[in-house]
Amino acid sequence: MKKVAVLLSGSGVFDGAEINEAVLTLLHISKRGASYQCFAPDMEQMQVVNHLNGEQTGEKRNVLAEAARIARGNVKPLSELNAAEFDALMLPGGFGVAKNFCDFAENGADMKVNKEVLAIGKAFAEANKPAGYLCIAPVLLPHIYGKGVRVTVGNDKEVAGAIEKMGGIHVECPVDDIVSDDSRLVVTTPAYMLAENLVDAEKGISKLVEKVLYMAA
Amino acid sequence: MKKVAVLLSGSGVFDGAEINEAVLTLLHISKRGASYQCFAPDMEQMQVVNHLNGEQTGEKRNVLAEAARIARGNVKPLSELNAAEFDALMLPGGFGVAKNFCDFAENGADMKVNKEVLAIGKAFAEANKPAGYLCIAPVLLPHIYGKGVRVTVGNDKEVAGAIEKMGGIHVECPVDDIVSDDSRLVVTTPAYMLAENLVDAEKGISKLVEKVLYMAA
Repeated sequence: MKKVAVLLSGSGVFDGAEINEAVLTLLHISKRGASYQCFAPDMEQMQVVNHLNGEQTGEKRNVLAEAARIARGNVKPLSELNAAEFDALMLPGGFGVAKNFCDFAENGADMKVNKEVLAIGKAFAEANKPAGYLCIAPVLLPHIYGKGVRVTVGNDKEVAGAIEKMGGIHVECPVDDIVSDDSRLVVTTPAYMLAENLVDAEKGISKLVEKVLYMAA
Repeated sequence: MKKVAVLLSGSGVFDGAEINEAVLTLLHISKRGASYQCFAPDMEQMQVVNHLNGEQTGEKRNVLAEAARIARGNVKPLSELNAAEFDALMLPGGFGVAKNFCDFAENGADMKVNKEVLAIGKAFAEANKPAGYLCIAPVLLPHIYGKGVRVTVGNDKEVAGAIEKMGGIHVECPVDDIVSDDSRLVVTTPAYMLAENLVDAEKGISKLVEKVLYMAA
């Protein structure tokens, strides 16, 4: 049975992992007969956003503890993730990626990636193990795979421009499809960068999971 | 297009709505060509539970604001739900139902139902509009539909016993199936009362959504 490590950046689109993307990723991993383990960094969220009105609340929440809401408690600290024990890596999107996994939300193309997240992404890349990055998560990829990595975030000109500035190649892609960099074994899909409903998001996510598991040894 | 009102009790299985059940319910409503609007009561959660270790944190969170994490902000206060504008009602489970929608978690069969939730449940029942209740949510049904309502929570003897004590009829049911009270137009499925994975949960939830939409005028 193929084993997938899934990285969660919290729980909730505006300050954490996009919940629908996370659940659909886990659902399709299971549907294809693979297993998964969720991981998240044991760190404070950059901010907490009231999802009703979009305003910061001033609360403090922990990324790992919030990610546990999606995973029904079954999430491990990212420090315990050993790439050697898994066949593939997947990262759902949400602003948590742009706020907790890196500082893209604040610094755009001048962003830095969280050291733990960067190390894990590179560990899978260097081991030639495939990875799937959803939604906004592809902003991490020029830092992980280096110049020339082919990715999509859909058709958002600002985010695509930042990816190109960081050395990536952005490929436009509809919500129900994927972009695959076959030489680097990394697959991306726009998900809620474009999705207007769960059915559209599911199509692209299902294809991403299928392709990543196909690439997994 | 059939319209479904979906009631969320927060975001996270141990103090709010079960996230997987909520997303799968919304997914299958969409897949069957119906539309939905999420609602939640604008009230403080009974408690906040750290989903990593199961302990109460002492924080205060609002059910409506947390539900907005699942609904990407698109959730309305339960006070704005008018049953006349919808064809069906659905309630995912999670401890939020037993802690925020009623006090079953504390008082078992002596529980009381939140007045707003009770009124909405009864409004759909009295209008002969179908409803689907997942997981632990069927504990509400003897209060909403009165004695003799046929429901399932799977095979949990304690919860089933409490439902019978309150006047309901509990029917054992596997995770991938539903129990339908055809005279009252109310459908139940065990979901995470029994589910050990997303694929099993999805089977029952898919059947519940199909049956409720079929019953909807």
